[in-house]
Amino acid sequence: MNQIRVTVWGENVHEQTNATVRTLYPTGMHQCIADALNSTPGIHATTATLDQPDHGLPPGRLQETDVLIWWGHAAHGQVRDDIVEQVTEAVWSGMGAIFLHSAHFSKPFKRLMGTPCNLTWREAGERERLWLTSRNHPIAAGLPDHFELETEEMYGEPFGIPEPLETVFISWFQGGEVFRGGCTWRRGSGRVFYFSPGHESYPIYHQPQIQRVIANAVQWAAPQGRAADTPRNTPVEQAREKIAARGPSVHDADGNLPK
Amino acid sequence: MNQIRVTVWGENVHEQTNATVRTLYPTGMHQCIADALNSTPGIHATTATLDQPDHGLPPGRLQETDVLIWWGHAAHGQVRDDIVEQVTEAVWSGMGAIFLHSAHFSKPFKRLMGTPCNLTWREAGERERLWLTSRNHPIAAGLPDHFELETEEMYGEPFGIPEPLETVFISWFQGGEVFRGGCTWRRGSGRVFYFSPGHESYPIYHQPQIQRVIANAVQWAAPQGRAADTPRNTPVEQAREKIAARGPSVHDADGNLPK
Amino acid sequence: MNQIRVTVWGENVHEQTNATVRTLYPTGMHQCIADALNSTPGIHATTATLDQPDHGLPPGRLQETDVLIWWGHAAHGQVRDDIVEQVTEAVWSGMGAIFLHSAHFSKPFKRLMGTPCNLTWREAGERERLWLTSRNHPIAAGLPDHFELETEEMYGEPFGIPEPLETVFISWFQGGEVFRGGCTWRRGSGRVFYFSPGHESYPIYHQPQIQRVIANAVQWAAPQGRAADTPRNTPVEQAREKIAARGPSVHDADGNLPK
Amino acid sequence: MNQIRVTVWGENVHEQTNATVRTLYPTGMHQCIADALNSTPGIHATTATLDQPDHGLPPGRLQETDVLIWWGHAAHGQVRDDIVEQVTEAVWSGMGAIFLHSAHFSKPFKRLMGTPCNLTWREAGERERLWLTSRNHPIAAGLPDHFELETEEMYGEPFGIPEPLETVFISWFQGGEVFRGGCTWRRGSGRVFYFSPGHESYPIYHQPQIQRVIANAVQWAAPQGRAADTPRNTPVEQAREKIAARGPSVHDADGNLPK
Repeated sequence: MNQIRVTVWGENVHEQTNATVRTLYPTGMHQCIADALNSTPGIHATTATLDQPDHGLPPGRLQETDVLIWWGHAAHGQVRDDIVEQVTEAVWSGMGAIFLHSAHFSKPFKRLMGTPCNLTWREAGERERLWLTSRNHPIAAGLPDHFELETEEMYGEPFGIPEPLETVFISWFQGGEVFRGGCTWRRGSGRVFYFSPGHESYPIYHQPQIQRVIANAVQWAAPQGRAADTPRNTPVEQAREKIAARGPSVHDADGNLPK
Repeated sequence: MNQIRVTVWGENVHEQTNATVRTLYPTGMHQCIADALNSTPGIHATTATLDQPDHGLPPGRLQETDVLIWWGHAAHGQVRDDIVEQVTEAVWSGMGAIFLHSAHFSKPFKRLMGTPCNLTWREAGERERLWLTSRNHPIAAGLPDHFELETEEMYGEPFGIPEPLETVFISWFQGGEVFRGGCTWRRGSGRVFYFSPGHESYPIYHQPQIQRVIANAVQWAAPQGRAADTPRNTPVEQAREKIAARGPSVHDADGNLPK
Repeated sequence: MNQIRVTVWGENVHEQTNATVRTLYPTGMHQCIADALNSTPGIHATTATLDQPDHGLPPGRLQETDVLIWWGHAAHGQVRDDIVEQVTEAVWSGMGAIFLHSAHFSKPFKRLMGTPCNLTWREAGERERLWLTSRNHPIAAGLPDHFELETEEMYGEPFGIPEPLETVFISWFQGGEVFRGGCTWRRGSGRVFYFSPGHESYPIYHQPQIQRVIANAVQWAAPQGRAADTPRNTPVEQAREKIAARGPSVHDADGNLPK
Repeated sequence: MNQIRVTVWGENVHEQTNATVRTLYPTGMHQCIADALNSTPGIHATTATLDQPDHGLPPGRLQETDVLIWWGHAAHGQVRDDIVEQVTEAVWSGMGAIFLHSAHFSKPFKRLMGTPCNLTWREAGERERLWLTSRNHPIAAGLPDHFELETEEMYGEPFGIPEPLETVFISWFQGGEVFRGGCTWRRGSGRVFYFSPGHESYPIYHQPQIQRVIANAVQWAAPQGRAADTPRNTPVEQAREKIAARGPSVHDADGNLPK
């Protein structure tokens, strides 16, 4: 198999405006994530950021992306709606998509879920422990049945998502909450994974277990099978069983509605 | 229990422009559906149409609607985006929603699904037979294990929807296709049902079995439990387990991101 | 609607052999649960126990039961296999079933799930906090978004169940674990709910919120729609579309395989 | 990756007793399926049959099997219950399992589903057309959006299975029925696929598209990640968060229930 082409999209705002974040991620969170992926055989990762022309996703870029990773927090509203539509349609055509942490409230994630995607939160540097609920899932390959983040932002239930296809991780928080922090869905021909860890003021993406989950998820989300076709009329002459048209019609002979 | 308040939203275009449709539904498809519902104890149905101010959904109308039924075909693009958002948020807050036939391509259904919602189709007046896959489902109460529509438009797989919570009906078509014609989802606090029968050039909504499915679906989709709250910060002082804040923060004391 | 007929099945072993349990539940855990249900309008609950003839489920009893509640722990192995099959078939025919706490390892629950149903556990009287993940679910009606059990046995992930139809509750434990403590499935025509609280050495079933969940679950699990039929041959003369038989056959004219 | 080790289990009864079946499959249906798999790179398939000692599954055989394929029809009742339990536990430990055609009523499939697994049927050599509902699924890789079997036994809804994780194929039948003929589930750590084509009196397993689906399914069902552990006590000293035991206990110091 060829290499999986990953584009890591980063908002890249707090890396510029917050000294703590800049110290933790001097080349940006997106670059930290891409560097870790590039150390995994079979994956080739590049980056794109909000401040670039077309947010770093010019025409053609998504067509050359097998899996898109998205991190955003402070500037969700600045993402252009036409870019959101392009991302959505690329997922429907088979591109995998991984949304990290505060990207639960990003435009493309909300667009793909069709739900409010809300949650409760608290930034107190508390301990989070991720538990595997589905130990045989490819996204959990090579991981222990639980692992810890010593300081993380709390994200808590109820989480306003559609019932997941599979719940892979559930998180325990020191302050008393739980959260479905690793969930999968399909949207059109594309696979979607949400993974909650990654608050920008903590060194989460430097942690090997987190890097392993993201690399596993890239391999899981890479396109398989065929892309979905567009909707189409199947004229009566092409019906799989021989039938004759009958009754009235609101469409013309070309299958169009009259103006 | 009080009466379930249903708003039947109809595009009401082909009833005006197509003689066949007008003959079949002289008061509109929406009124035909509402009349059938109003003959069911416990349901009170009214109508709204595209050509009314605010498409018949002025401020307050959705708040007084327990279940919204939506039928559209020729004029999906004319539905105002702000109305679509209001419908979406009403579903998230607990309003049930039933999308009929060509409403698979309506803005609110696509918005709630997050998928392309495409399908194959053929208007040839062929026979459709609906099979129950889940005979104990409340939406199938009182129905035989299959029933027929002598002339219906073909809708065929692949149907670009998210994997349903439950598949209640699967249709067989004379021309050789199959279709998941009755499916459920949850979106936020609201229940959603898609039901495929109902091409406007055939008398589908006059058929008692179709009326029964729609009435069952109204009862199934009516709000239950509590509405979802909005996302919210849980300050460290209010954590369920006693913890002390530690580490750096990107939020200010009020839980806001600095501008 | 008529009253929902509930049979609360209790193992009734530790109530006889353990002084703590006997003090907490002098009439048995099953009777405590039944008493609480009988204070709910529309529900009529009776009990059955392991030590009775046919474990309290003689011929006809399940046919007069709308929802069966099952609690067992020390004596799973003593439950007769023929009774397990009768329970299983009653669920398939539409009877609701609610399995409580250590009934995760009971014969009928394992039989209905088809999975190992294993988990991790610790009996240390620690605090459990149940979070609603689906606040609009009928089983959560009238409940806050979380509530606590001051002392409960820990049940932890990974929980060896099939991916639930809906995850309603997820539990947080003081010792650091999480657990999908409230989950739904369908099996044949029957609805199944698993609810984890209820260790016998703590007064869990006296707690109003627990009683409310169980009463809600009874209403949710009560039979709806039609029961499933048995498998059956559909002779070619009865095919819904006219066809002629062709090709070889391994069945005789009555649809039976030759001996 | 190493080769995927497949064991194709065949009942091998009608091949001995029915001249039509013997002519179609002179070396047995199991051997035909295994031969096709062995022409696929990365798969090594062997066979086992009912009439062999331990039904061809002696101690150790399942431990050396990555994916088990099962076909049975006339002799389900002759399969030893202890072998059924071994198959079930192997699936729970991560072995993939593919059940073909009339294996919907085999002991191991019913055991893994926990449902009646009933259906309607008719042996009339009619046309079946399989439609892909999920074109991007790995099991559908390389296949067109539909394909036909010119003569097949009809299997029809309602099919008494648990709601599938994913519905991959739905079948159309000439006589008027539909059937969810390709469905997936997880059971413990193992993946399960049911695929309906394969009546023994027709040359179904010689058809390249059918062979492709089975080979795809083998690759999909091969074990991933870690196997599930057995249930276990987590003593208070080993709790992930420091807690002290409190309150009464029904277990002794070793975590056992007193006799």
